[in-house]
Amino acid sequence: MPMPADATVPFRFVLVRTAHPGNIGSTARAMRTMGFTRLELVAPARFPDPQATAMAAGADAVLALAGVHADMVAGLAGCSMAIGLSARRRGVALPEWSPREGAQQALAAAARGEQVALVFGNERTGLENSELAHCHGMVRIPSVDDFSSLNLAQAVQVMAYEMRLAMLATVPPAPPAPVGEPLADAVKMEQFFTHLEQTLDDIDFHKGRPPAVVVLRLRKLFQRSQMDERELRILHGILADAQRMARLAGVTGKRADAG
Amino acid sequence: MPMPADATVPFRFVLVRTAHPGNIGSTARAMRTMGFTRLELVAPARFPDPQATAMAAGADAVLALAGVHADMVAGLAGCSMAIGLSARRRGVALPEWSPREGAQQALAAAARGEQVALVFGNERTGLENSELAHCHGMVRIPSVDDFSSLNLAQAVQVMAYEMRLAMLATVPPAPPAPVGEPLADAVKMEQFFTHLEQTLDDIDFHKGRPPAVVVLRLRKLFQRSQMDERELRILHGILADAQRMARLAGVTGKRADAG
Repeated sequence: MPMPADATVPFRFVLVRTAHPGNIGSTARAMRTMGFTRLELVAPARFPDPQATAMAAGADAVLALAGVHADMVAGLAGCSMAIGLSARRRGVALPEWSPREGAQQALAAAARGEQVALVFGNERTGLENSELAHCHGMVRIPSVDDFSSLNLAQAVQVMAYEMRLAMLATVPPAPPAPVGEPLADAVKMEQFFTHLEQTLDDIDFHKGRPPAVVVLRLRKLFQRSQMDERELRILHGILADAQRMARLAGVTGKRADAG
Repeated sequence: MPMPADATVPFRFVLVRTAHPGNIGSTARAMRTMGFTRLELVAPARFPDPQATAMAAGADAVLALAGVHADMVAGLAGCSMAIGLSARRRGVALPEWSPREGAQQALAAAARGEQVALVFGNERTGLENSELAHCHGMVRIPSVDDFSSLNLAQAVQVMAYEMRLAMLATVPPAPPAPVGEPLADAVKMEQFFTHLEQTLDDIDFHKGRPPAVVVLRLRKLFQRSQMDERELRILHGILADAQRMARLAGVTGKRADAG
């Protein structure tokens, strides 16, 4: 599958001291769904690895191009902005952003011609303070306090998703989908309600009760359904068959109170 | 770890025909990080399973409480709103929302006192059209066209994240206005559709034509109407009277092609 070269070029995802190679593969997939292709690995426990390939689920090209580095500075070479992800609030002198704010910061930096890294730490211990020291800001995904740690690849997915949303926000939306059957207009709806009311009479639905309340409820129901003309035709057909049954039964026109 | 009872109570995540139990575990974790605890499984390939527990990474309580159901209607029991996730644009007549819009819809429904399901399909094939038919809206996570399919648990993570953002943004609401009639849940809707289909047969509506297309259109029409229980009772009454007419006419069970 060809790798698109595009607006994602300034961005790289950096995984630091990843313990489980499967998470590297899942990360590659998560990145690729949002159009990102540059992955850098700093001191991974095991890579390459069949588990990484298996979990990449087709995003093999991302793995094939992934750089492997001994230390974080090497992984950040060329980047003038690095955003570190952390599950916990940290006592570090870094601005703390939501994922949405972090994506905005990242895009602003890219617009200035910078390369930007999104940095994720070890699954269990996260990023060390010494690693965060290379970052310019920190993103905390707003998980609950009593279960705050997302799986590494799921954190990558959320950040990549917010990045993509931020990038799409600059693109004009697609033209609206073509309309199918025309919606029923007021005239056709009124014809339907007339038919419905006649049918309710023919099948002796009201049984002597005042019809207005039920009829009003039915009007509201079908009105809000915003039916198209094909649906109307089907309903007219059902009503017509119910009326036919009443005629065959010799019931049409009789009322419960007529004895 | 104690499970918080709180604003997440109206929401459930429903996984349909999940092939890999590890994804069920990862889903439980993804849910739990965002404070969600109710998981329903419809026809999972294997559950319980050690892989699910392993991937849950501490969210065992979610797995322990997960319901297992044979069919989707049972998994949606009590829900009057279901949102289906799909990787692809689908040719179904459901409103299509972004995850953010879907979360807004879900919260609005919960504010009206409804129970809401977020529904995810099989890893490879997604949700069948017959399963989407039980949904009121569809969310597509905005992945790239040439690599559109997120890992199941990562899709859950993104949706749970957007749900949490929406909940964090909401000022605690005033006590909800009295709701009136409850909306029909999936079980009652299925009973209605069964009655409708029986009635169409009894009044010889199909006249030898294949019934599936019309039945599907009617399902879509009434599904999107989001009927309340009073409206359902009215419609059941109309169907019953139409059936009565057919019995009186001696028509029930005859078909146009039976001569």
